[in-house]
Amino acid sequence: MTDRTTVKCLTIVAEAVLEQRLINDLRLAGASGWTLTSAQGAGPRTRRVSEAGGGNVRVEVLATAEVVDRMWSALRERYFPQYAVVAWEYDVKVERGELFGS
Amino acid sequence: MTDRTTVKCLTIVAEAVLEQRLINDLRLAGASGWTLTSAQGAGPRTRRVSEAGGGNVRVEVLATAEVVDRMWSALRERYFPQYAVVAWEYDVKVERGELFGS
Amino acid sequence: MTDRTTVKCLTIVAEAVLEQRLINDLRLAGASGWTLTSAQGAGPRTRRVSEAGGGNVRVEVLATAEVVDRMWSALRERYFPQYAVVAWEYDVKVERGELFGS
Repeated sequence: MTDRTTVKCLTIVAEAVLEQRLINDLRLAGASGWTLTSAQGAGPRTRRVSEAGGGNVRVEVLATAEVVDRMWSALRERYFPQYAVVAWEYDVKVERGELFGS
Repeated sequence: MTDRTTVKCLTIVAEAVLEQRLINDLRLAGASGWTLTSAQGAGPRTRRVSEAGGGNVRVEVLATAEVVDRMWSALRERYFPQYAVVAWEYDVKVERGELFGS
Repeated sequence: MTDRTTVKCLTIVAEAVLEQRLINDLRLAGASGWTLTSAQGAGPRTRRVSEAGGGNVRVEVLATAEVVDRMWSALRERYFPQYAVVAWEYDVKVERGELFGS
């Protein structure tokens, strides 16, 4: 009942125009849910962010390491080379781990 | 002065209509503060979220393990069975730990 | 290629009027990027938050421990004594660690 399992939380911050594309790639990676918030940002590649106007989207995904690794591959192959995208991963504890693929 | 203590950060994402109720339960659990952001989400139970319209609220709470455990109980008893609520917990370091009940 | 390094994520929640000042101090501390989201909050010092009206800003920074320690010093010296500011730090994994000073 009160069992907590460890899953990964992957947070991605990207230009808002990439939102739908990121969601498609999250689905393909096997994620079953995510949380979106509007954000603004500055980064080592800020120039590109500001050129894009329109703000950023902050996407949070809870998933297994396997799913998150697939999303890192997508980021590495199809986002990092072209876009001002920042991502970070950390371990979190959840209840009902089966909802997140555990 | 620079002592950092470890407390729990509990993040809860729920339908926005549950905001006040969550805050009441956080108070009852003994939390002394929280941060709210507007969010949108999709999850394993997305249908229910979208039926509710109105978006999601993302609540972050820094508190002791004891307070966070009480909030997990509230989630398990009064939210998870009925609502599309996602929650996750992780350890964070803070200064002035006494503000968070440490 | 797939090397992940550990950096610190520092999250700061403060009155929105402090946004530009926080960004200046982040730059001085050596941060190269941050993510801003609008938030509302209540805390142990809520009265001061509500007196200020205007909501809160939530700032997330990925950086080395050294940069984050400098920002903690700034918070301790120029924010905590006067403002309702909450901050917390945790370890995260990133790819392309060099972007964050690693």
